[in-house]
Amino acid sequence: MPCWRSALLCSMFPSDNKACSRLEETRLSEETVYQGVLLRVRRDRVRLPDGSESAREYIEHSGAAVILAFLENGDLLFERQFRYPLHRIFLELPAGKVDAGETPEEAARRELLEETGYTAEKWRSLGVLHPCIGYSNERIDVFAAHGLRQAAAQNLDRGEFLEVFPLAMPTVQEKILAGEITDGKTLAALYFATLRAL
Amino acid sequence: MPCWRSALLCSMFPSDNKACSRLEETRLSEETVYQGVLLRVRRDRVRLPDGSESAREYIEHSGAAVILAFLENGDLLFERQFRYPLHRIFLELPAGKVDAGETPEEAARRELLEETGYTAEKWRSLGVLHPCIGYSNERIDVFAAHGLRQAAAQNLDRGEFLEVFPLAMPTVQEKILAGEITDGKTLAALYFATLRAL
Repeated sequence: MPCWRSALLCSMFPSDNKACSRLEETRLSEETVYQGVLLRVRRDRVRLPDGSESAREYIEHSGAAVILAFLENGDLLFERQFRYPLHRIFLELPAGKVDAGETPEEAARRELLEETGYTAEKWRSLGVLHPCIGYSNERIDVFAAHGLRQAAAQNLDRGEFLEVFPLAMPTVQEKILAGEITDGKTLAALYFATLRAL
Repeated sequence: MPCWRSALLCSMFPSDNKACSRLEETRLSEETVYQGVLLRVRRDRVRLPDGSESAREYIEHSGAAVILAFLENGDLLFERQFRYPLHRIFLELPAGKVDAGETPEEAARRELLEETGYTAEKWRSLGVLHPCIGYSNERIDVFAAHGLRQAAAQNLDRGEFLEVFPLAMPTVQEKILAGEITDGKTLAALYFATLRAL
């Protein structure tokens, strides 16, 4: 069986360039099985590494950006937002979807301004994370923003309700250990910041 | 408007127990709009905090567990797995869904044995994360496992293909900084371990 997208797959594992052929699944056919107002679900027939066939279902997502927005005193901008799937308020970093035609950094700048009213002078890409590799193709670009300036009032999308507040990093860590911050993208973005000693 | 599940919501924010009424969305009706082989999508009509109505779509998920399995020398067990939604091999921690009737710790023990062949003497809960709060109700319980013993051969589910290997923590961190580990649950679980100085 040929290695689908073999250049990409194999280039990731130069020390083990046969992993792709032992593990990869190749597409036989594709279908959009649900198109809702927010979610699009795709189901593909695939050939598994042992030659058998199976189905793979997943959410098609346009990507998102999450922002570590550092105030001058080192505090981070956090948001309090009700997340309907879990029927709970979450503490999370500012974030939002990448719109058509936008780069992830443009989305990050737009979302920070819309959700918090802040602009930032310095933007730095910290990396990429994939929140839900089992059933979504979403990718989230992580940015650090420094040199914040309150430029406008919050300007939320219709149907969006959230509150913004600063949190000192020691408090952030206390809240994680207390189970009060459980949002995956927020945790992963904070880990990126920790590893880069931000 | 009454505060739906107000005890839960408000108990999380004792310092701001009006946040729930400013941010919460209340269910008006519910519907399963897609039931596939793997995914179930639900669409609810909701009332927003400003009194208007909207729709919320999300994946219904039974929950999962992820395991930081420490070998005696401090290395972590990692897996190499092709993830179809992103058409790529990922480096990730052992993990799997919680089956009906199982506790998250039972799922963690079962998945570690099935995916890697290892059992562990000591299990410790490190916390909970929510990988995808915008469109899934999945929760992932994070466990640390110490005192590993190779007890059996890998025993994978039908249609599951993955490879297991050890990684030293400095290598894990290098791979994160190099963009070679991007799986959200893996990053968040590693951050839990870092904050608890494991």
